Amino acid sequence: MGEQVIPEQLLADCHLLGRFQASTVLLHRNAAVPWFILVPQTPLCDFLDLPDAVREEVVCQCVSISAFIKQELGFDKVNFAGLGNVVPAMHLHIIGRRPQDACWPQPVWGNLPEGASYSAEKLRDWQTRLARRTGLQPASPADHE
Amino acid sequence: MGEQVIPEQLLADCHLLGRFQASTVLLHRNAAVPWFILVPQTPLCDFLDLPDAVREEVVCQCVSISAFIKQELGFDKVNFAGLGNVVPAMHLHIIGRRPQDACWPQPVWGNLPEGASYSAEKLRDWQTRLARRTGLQPASPADHE
Repeated sequence: MGEQVIPEQLLADCHLLGRFQASTVLLHRNAAVPWFILVPQTPLCDFLDLPDAVREEVVCQCVSISAFIKQELGFDKVNFAGLGNVVPAMHLHIIGRRPQDACWPQPVWGNLPEGASYSAEKLRDWQTRLARRTGLQPASPADHE
Repeated sequence: MGEQVIPEQLLADCHLLGRFQASTVLLHRNAAVPWFILVPQTPLCDFLDLPDAVREEVVCQCVSISAFIKQELGFDKVNFAGLGNVVPAMHLHIIGRRPQDACWPQPVWGNLPEGASYSAEKLRDWQTRLARRTGLQPASPADHE
């Protein structure tokens, strides 16, 4: 497949961290919680509509991001969701949560107050650790902006 | 495994529709949207922590409910999520959505106004069709209450 096109609204809200096989990994700019978004390269909109083999590959990518959140970032809880009511193109949320965070126990959508931004150093650090741990192909720093 | 214990808070909010192999299917009492909740029989809390084989079985059950929502109830969009910030025991939301619904495009959690209730006839009808289509073992009518 060719270069994946990511919806403008997601790019406006997120840093582009890198790519897996047939998917792109974003990180929401609001650093209040570690909010990763996996964008599978598919014309389908809903996670539960994916063909079995594709879905299993996509889930494994989500599992690897969840393991990064838990084992490297120290979160006990991960919220997982595919909604797409506002941006129809399929994108899956993988979000580290803890009882002390900015909108616990509410879901993040519509409830997360504006938070700090990520530094360029932090983004590079997470990219490096994700690449080592999950096989993510890091995007170039220019793509973070 | 023995009889599955469903958290009280979920039972308070939901009708018990029936059981799959190693999971229970609930339906939120608020009939404003078709909001199914699958409760896998597992001590784990987060969907992305399930062992591969268990996760695949659980996802297939969710796929069958999503297909029911789309093909039998006529919805184009299904939201899927595993959150568990309030009720830690694993439960997965499979929710039919449409642009005309009561909280579109917001997610349902915290945004869905109180809606109509399901009639006993509607519950029986959905149970029957789910049983035919997905292999759900229907709960007895007394369990709906």
